[in-house]
Amino acid sequence: PMNFNIALLRGDGIGPEIVDSAVAVLHKIGKKYGHTFTCTPYLIGGCAIDATGIPLPKETIDGCLASDSVLLGAVGGAVGHNKWDQMPPHLRPEKALLGIREALGLFTNLRPAKLYPALKGDCPLREDIVAKGFDIMMVRELTGGIYFGERGRREGKYGEEAYDTECYSKMEVERIARVAFETARKRNKNVISIDKANVLESSRLWREVVHEVAKDYPDVTLTDMLVDNAAMQLVKNPRQFDVVVTSNMFGDILSDEASQITGSIGMLPSASLGATKRGMYEPIHGSAPDIAGQNKANPIATILSAAMMLRYSFDLMDEAQAIEDAVDAYLNAGYRTADLAGEGVTPLSCTECTEKIIALL
Amino acid sequence: PMNFNIALLRGDGIGPEIVDSAVAVLHKIGKKYGHTFTCTPYLIGGCAIDATGIPLPKETIDGCLASDSVLLGAVGGAVGHNKWDQMPPHLRPEKALLGIREALGLFTNLRPAKLYPALKGDCPLREDIVAKGFDIMMVRELTGGIYFGERGRREGKYGEEAYDTECYSKMEVERIARVAFETARKRNKNVISIDKANVLESSRLWREVVHEVAKDYPDVTLTDMLVDNAAMQLVKNPRQFDVVVTSNMFGDILSDEASQITGSIGMLPSASLGATKRGMYEPIHGSAPDIAGQNKANPIATILSAAMMLRYSFDLMDEAQAIEDAVDAYLNAGYRTADLAGEGVTPLSCTECTEKIIALL
Ligand SMILES: CC(C)[C@H](C(=O)O)[C@@H](O)C(=O)O
Ligand SMILES: CC(C)[C@H](C(=O)O)[C@@H](O)C(=O)O
Repeated sequence: PMNFNIALLRGDGIGPEIVDSAVAVLHKIGKKYGHTFTCTPYLIGGCAIDATGIPLPKETIDGCLASDSVLLGAVGGAVGHNKWDQMPPHLRPEKALLGIREALGLFTNLRPAKLYPALKGDCPLREDIVAKGFDIMMVRELTGGIYFGERGRREGKYGEEAYDTECYSKMEVERIARVAFETARKRNKNVISIDKANVLESSRLWREVVHEVAKDYPDVTLTDMLVDNAAMQLVKNPRQFDVVVTSNMFGDILSDEASQITGSIGMLPSASLGATKRGMYEPIHGSAPDIAGQNKANPIATILSAAMMLRYSFDLMDEAQAIEDAVDAYLNAGYRTADLAGEGVTPLSCTECTEKIIALL
Repeated sequence: PMNFNIALLRGDGIGPEIVDSAVAVLHKIGKKYGHTFTCTPYLIGGCAIDATGIPLPKETIDGCLASDSVLLGAVGGAVGHNKWDQMPPHLRPEKALLGIREALGLFTNLRPAKLYPALKGDCPLREDIVAKGFDIMMVRELTGGIYFGERGRREGKYGEEAYDTECYSKMEVERIARVAFETARKRNKNVISIDKANVLESSRLWREVVHEVAKDYPDVTLTDMLVDNAAMQLVKNPRQFDVVVTSNMFGDILSDEASQITGSIGMLPSASLGATKRGMYEPIHGSAPDIAGQNKANPIATILSAAMMLRYSFDLMDEAQAIEDAVDAYLNAGYRTADLAGEGVTPLSCTECTEKIIALL
């Protein structure tokens, strides 16, 4: 029997409820397959500010570094209407996300965006466009680019100005490109690399390096796409995408667009990975403070994040698949939480949804 | 009778055909309302490279500066498969676009994205989402930000790296914000300003300045939205947007996304404006080299760009409206060029389309 130590970063809003759901699922998996998951909670985001004055306490970083992997709920309050928004930039809840990504060296963000057949009706795209479904894996660079470059204010030729620096080294592009090609090998062997090489020097370097790496993967098809065109193509024909690789900033925008076109962001997990097996797993949706504590949240994105953890950090492939199958079975049985319940469907609570999925495991 | 001098930048691919169509429409308007439009062609893009070795010859800049306004077709060849792609970055066709924007001081890009009732069937979004239509005016900053900031290669801590600088001065943000608020006053008095203020310092300055300017427009509602969320909201509910104001880079991505959700990019014009009445007007679509010279292109985006020229540069409101009404009448009569012709509809050629619209004027 194996034991895995998981750092739980429940966070704010619905974070605690959905993380608890995922932990319940993990315990059931542990029972079934003979593993134990030892979960230790740490503070992050707004709740950490309330308790300690800062959004990412040192104990949290240390706890994560001492763990085998990290499961995160969500951080932050209601946009524009919460006490944490008043904090200076370096103490805002979101800053904790950037900080933990950097501290754990999580340079890869994997975000699957696929259409669940049972949820086709929720897809905002026209039926004929998505008739055959789509299944995109977004590979976003997560610890470089304009998110981590030098920034500040200064006097310029027009007076006060503010600047940020988009910067990529060959090393950073190479390692994320390798992740994309390796991922594509396990899927449909198709990588679309997104940049703005007709304007940005960092994109030109990006493109060069991605093509260099591609030589090691002759079995994988590589296509370049400009970011503005990509924003169109996702809406026009999402099926053309298999693996997408792009920079931190473009990945932020495009992976949210890709999520939205599934119509069910309450279902979408993510994995942030580095050079070791330790990763951080979290739903892509936010902390939804409006429904926090009401047992209404959809825990599936977090449950599927836990499944990704089993697959990518613990090499527990069957266990991961079992969770994903249980979620499919749950959907096919017609169960829905409030976010997805159409007219005439009685929505399940967060705990009811969790129980159903556990029962289907 | 008034005379207006128009510099024609026909450009590459279908550029010449569609510009000629728009000019024919202008001449008809001139006849009807008693103006003359004197059009002088200049080279830009690939055709300028072929003729002179550079994509934006000095005569072109001088000709535009001497004109009352500029009408542009499209520049560049097939993506990744044309001789001009082999040029060094500073001599590529697209570079001409950046150069002419800068030379003419065109810091504002206006891009309407609206759903034509007659073309609802082409919209890629689910019917119920767009049942009531949408009508977005994108206001993109066009001569600042990462497009024009310092860039280069250097040695960094991980070896060779490339960088670009996103930079905005208060002055630059203030003037584009004023355009957005003025535009909103003539529409639904609603501005959504898009940034990434939770990460970027340039976005924090952007947000501060936009809110400062908003004080002069108490009749207009201002909302901030993060760029990743905006990429989702455009798909989820495009109707929530009236005027959108954002940076050069975010505007590039989001205005293309907004265009795509109309489903008819062959219909969408744009205006690039500066501090004077002189502007540059162009369709948002590209040069479509695959159908160039075949008389198949849809000229309407260029014809509507000419209408924007009449409105914004020449203050010819009735004349602009007449063109827009003729386009509506054309669509309502069921005429379609190949890009929009559904099954069973015989597509009109570019010249036939132009003739129909002229006849409806
Ligand atoms: C909160 C914010 C800093 C973060 C990001 O932009 O990376 C979020 O949008 C995300 O995508 O995880
Ligand atoms: C060709 C390119 C430089 C240009 C831009 O990004 O501004 C184009 O995409 C546009 O939006 O007009």
